[in-house]
Amino acid sequence: MHADDMVLVSVDDHVVEPPEVFEGRLEERYQDAAPKFITRPDGTMAWLHEGEELVNVALNAVAGRPRDEYGWEPASIDEIRPGCYDVHARVKDMDAGGTLGSLNFASFPGYVGKVFVPTAARDRDLAAALVRAYNDWHLEAWAGAYPDRFIPMILPMMWDAELTAAEVRRAAALGCHAVSFSSNPYALGLPSLYSDTWDPFWEACVEVGTVPCMHIGSSGTDVVTSPDAPIESIYSLSPVNLIEAATDVVWSPMFRKYPELRVALSEGGVGWVPYFRERVDYIFDHTQHWSGMDLGGKLPSEIFDEHVILCFIDDAIGVENRHHLNLDNLTWELDYPHSDSEWPNAPERVMEHFEGVSDADIDKITHLNAMRHFQFDPFRLRAREDSTVGALRRSASDWDVSIKTVAERRALAAAH
Amino acid sequence: MHADDMVLVSVDDHVVEPPEVFEGRLEERYQDAAPKFITRPDGTMAWLHEGEELVNVALNAVAGRPRDEYGWEPASIDEIRPGCYDVHARVKDMDAGGTLGSLNFASFPGYVGKVFVPTAARDRDLAAALVRAYNDWHLEAWAGAYPDRFIPMILPMMWDAELTAAEVRRAAALGCHAVSFSSNPYALGLPSLYSDTWDPFWEACVEVGTVPCMHIGSSGTDVVTSPDAPIESIYSLSPVNLIEAATDVVWSPMFRKYPELRVALSEGGVGWVPYFRERVDYIFDHTQHWSGMDLGGKLPSEIFDEHVILCFIDDAIGVENRHHLNLDNLTWELDYPHSDSEWPNAPERVMEHFEGVSDADIDKITHLNAMRHFQFDPFRLRAREDSTVGALRRSASDWDVSIKTVAERRALAAAH
Repeated sequence: MHADDMVLVSVDDHVVEPPEVFEGRLEERYQDAAPKFITRPDGTMAWLHEGEELVNVALNAVAGRPRDEYGWEPASIDEIRPGCYDVHARVKDMDAGGTLGSLNFASFPGYVGKVFVPTAARDRDLAAALVRAYNDWHLEAWAGAYPDRFIPMILPMMWDAELTAAEVRRAAALGCHAVSFSSNPYALGLPSLYSDTWDPFWEACVEVGTVPCMHIGSSGTDVVTSPDAPIESIYSLSPVNLIEAATDVVWSPMFRKYPELRVALSEGGVGWVPYFRERVDYIFDHTQHWSGMDLGGKLPSEIFDEHVILCFIDDAIGVENRHHLNLDNLTWELDYPHSDSEWPNAPERVMEHFEGVSDADIDKITHLNAMRHFQFDPFRLRAREDSTVGALRRSASDWDVSIKTVAERRALAAAH
Repeated sequence: MHADDMVLVSVDDHVVEPPEVFEGRLEERYQDAAPKFITRPDGTMAWLHEGEELVNVALNAVAGRPRDEYGWEPASIDEIRPGCYDVHARVKDMDAGGTLGSLNFASFPGYVGKVFVPTAARDRDLAAALVRAYNDWHLEAWAGAYPDRFIPMILPMMWDAELTAAEVRRAAALGCHAVSFSSNPYALGLPSLYSDTWDPFWEACVEVGTVPCMHIGSSGTDVVTSPDAPIESIYSLSPVNLIEAATDVVWSPMFRKYPELRVALSEGGVGWVPYFRERVDYIFDHTQHWSGMDLGGKLPSEIFDEHVILCFIDDAIGVENRHHLNLDNLTWELDYPHSDSEWPNAPERVMEHFEGVSDADIDKITHLNAMRHFQFDPFRLRAREDSTVGALRRSASDWDVSIKTVAERRALAAAH
């Protein structure tokens, strides 16, 4: 297979929320309490919520910048590609990058809407209304604008498993089968993944076929070895949170209680998994005679293979070791517009790793697994031959994907 | 190669300290302040130090037990194999297990002698004297009793890099080229691996050719995701501390300052390393244009390959992926008498992973690399043909390695 012939569905990208997210989506009594998008006196932008200015409006949205400006955190939407926050521009960016489908995580609310948890502590109904409004915006204005291009995803109400279960059911009725969830709720001050608190949530997910997606960073904590560790150290250790999540879901009773449940480790990478599988089996071999752990007659690696969906951006070792993985649970990510992304050159990059991989297996990894797990069927709405990397790029040959400095981007925004 | 033909030198085993460690090894004014081995009213044993009873006298020393008794922490030396604390019995256990050489970490003081750090806070000279006495015992009575069978190792004075440097030089003059060191001193309340505090220590190590060995657990912290996580979760995540250490040493300036320095990641495993190498290079590719990180023109993976000695007990994935590793830095561990060990059947276990590995590479992994890095030359003292798994086991054919319950072990101890 040539890179142009791939069909790419990414299970991990990011939307930078535009100012109008909450507009017209709340009862009047709640409208004033909604987060507000503000421009500050110095020209930077923020979301104002609960009296706090959340300044990460465009968190790490560096796509299309020169790499020497990657370290300069975007402080306003004037500094980033419109594809970050404008769905029509996003689809053009996807075309130009050869990506057919995309699942988008939230930015300013945090991966699991953690900014709404303090709101819930003082007014649970308001907090739930805000999450519902956000989800409505995502389902209608974002993913819903191009149902052939987006895998819709909702935010949970992390403070309430029953409410989240209801929201999962409501969203599924609207065609959404992905929900963001924390890789370690305990780190957010909530019950852990071992707790039965979450059972109503898992139950709803199984009932309607929805996949909880645990993104790196969704525990709300970074792995930092010391205060003088450089940024490279923190980036190097970012998969550790998902190694921890992999551990918790394997040893938690959740999959014994809900055998149909699947979870995704978003941006977790894959290359560490063969070692992890071997390690948990080795541990179980040494502990099962005394610890009381009951895995229902299965090996921990079998539980992992069956229930955990793996997601990688660029992972030669993971692909090389795919014979140690469940190939039906292996998916690909673009990570647009974050700094780890290779957009718009990702197809060529990922193709380098597919040497020796059969066309059938490439298809599984690049789109078929994602389509099945998230019940995403773009070919109901468009022809497959118009959905390949080559076809999409041809349709966007006039779309500007040239590298632009922050200064150039600001000048462009001012001219509009 | 057949399992019987291997020569096994393990770079990670453990000594359970016998009562006499400090006897006759301290100036009279310090003798009373030395840790004391006591038997408590209930028959359990402890080391009494600084007014505290340290009950882990036989930490995890479960070799030779039935596996359903692995979870019952040994509480006295009557419950464990004499090979844990008696060097003559240890050598017999090594013979019976086919192991030629062994490097032994401390038990009751903690991997890096952290029990002496509070002592140093009130009396630095006393604390240093205690560490020196411990090291003298290890160098003379333990490793020194069989110089053809043990790689000697010393404890550091973690509170003082200059003192540790002096101790490294003193030990090297006595033929010792291994020193235990923390995988994250910051977690122990000390400067991090990024700090130049440790420069005198690294300098001494380079000067005399000594390898700092960072054992899992030597940061003094476990990776625990939540209080209700089962023991399997904590075991699954034990390598994470060394993934963190690998990260710190790659990005720290230490190897640029000391290009001859090598460190070992003891019990860190290997299977995660190919992914880690790929990941750090990917990160550097994305950060080097803005972060200011200077690696002297090298890739992070090159720094890792050059300076980091890898150590594995049982790691099929690591061996399968050895083409992604520096094979000159790959070493093997027995982990006697801990629960992860396969003693006395380790040779057959490890041989399973060596299918397709050349004899020359098996020799590197099983003993030649360890001999070179730790300047350990048993063949100066004994013939190689008497040092293979088969030859050693034949010499100990009458040694009892049968599985014994704790009750049986206690009855045996009472009979003596």
